[in-house]
Amino acid sequence: MKVLIIGASGTIGSNVADALSSEHEIIRANYNSGDVQVDIGNPESISAMFTKTGNVDAVISTAGLANFAPLDALQDSDYQLALNNKLMGQINLVRIGKAFINHGGSITLTSGILSRQPMPGSTAISMANGALESFAKAAALEIENFRVNIVAPAFVKETMEMMGMDSAYGVSAKDTAKAYVAAVTGSDHGNTLDVPDYV
Amino acid sequence: MKVLIIGASGTIGSNVADALSSEHEIIRANYNSGDVQVDIGNPESISAMFTKTGNVDAVISTAGLANFAPLDALQDSDYQLALNNKLMGQINLVRIGKAFINHGGSITLTSGILSRQPMPGSTAISMANGALESFAKAAALEIENFRVNIVAPAFVKETMEMMGMDSAYGVSAKDTAKAYVAAVTGSDHGNTLDVPDYV
Repeated sequence: MKVLIIGASGTIGSNVADALSSEHEIIRANYNSGDVQVDIGNPESISAMFTKTGNVDAVISTAGLANFAPLDALQDSDYQLALNNKLMGQINLVRIGKAFINHGGSITLTSGILSRQPMPGSTAISMANGALESFAKAAALEIENFRVNIVAPAFVKETMEMMGMDSAYGVSAKDTAKAYVAAVTGSDHGNTLDVPDYV
Repeated sequence: MKVLIIGASGTIGSNVADALSSEHEIIRANYNSGDVQVDIGNPESISAMFTKTGNVDAVISTAGLANFAPLDALQDSDYQLALNNKLMGQINLVRIGKAFINHGGSITLTSGILSRQPMPGSTAISMANGALESFAKAAALEIENFRVNIVAPAFVKETMEMMGMDSAYGVSAKDTAKAYVAAVTGSDHGNTLDVPDYV
């Protein structure tokens, strides 16, 4: 399969690429590196990316910006970032990308368990994650020629360590990648794959 | 209690007002009628509304615009309407309204079962509804002096009839109102109250 990974240089994305690269052709997309550059917050940039890659069998997004901050500190701009980037950026990968997915292919987007297991400071992120999961469930009812799913990672061990957090309850990026592999190689459609179920 | 109902002239809102008006003081807010006018898509309009009403014990929103249309027909503007009005309009009722809610009060917003039981054509609405439900669950972790909940109506019988649909599986607006009464008078916080559970 030809697999386009958006956010391929990230902690999760690089592990997803590693997990798939022995059996599949990987096209790496990042904001300012990789085989092709893309700003998912800009629909024209998404269109330009697909025009460059041409048709692919799978799109995996491990990208999407949203800020963690107390409810009282979150600004309008924080909500707009979550909506324009993490949410609509990934939804636009489906809306624009559907013309470039080979029959039987798939698009896999990233939410996170904060949609259903929030924590203080997660309101903007939880909002975007919940929106993505409901979008995919609805969109799958209308998409017949490829599959669309969401992977909901738990906290990633490497990210927690980078942030100085206790990573005891984190899931390694390598284990997190397993849910993406399942989404691409399995038969799910419209589902949210919770990472802890695939570790 | 002093209860501010936003969307009070609507099919659901008017029934919520009827259900609460014998025991509580109702302030009716609508786009262009009622005791106070508000455009929830405009944060300045929300601020102006609360400045006029002063403190209240409960805010109920039965307002929020989003379009139903096939995935292939939904435009950028449809997603923006759902995000700016139904989603951020209601989230801003919490962000701006929290300074005007009396201790022990509540804010109740409206999503809809399409978040978890989508149908073809519901992607933009499902997206907004899922976002609202995850937002409330997260926000409740940080809000201590009042409660915030979501009511998720099923299809409303009167609306289905108005649209020429078979209303056999609809829930009457009067029955739908029961979930809002439960949200205002009960002890839920951060929860989504599914209307069929309260009929």
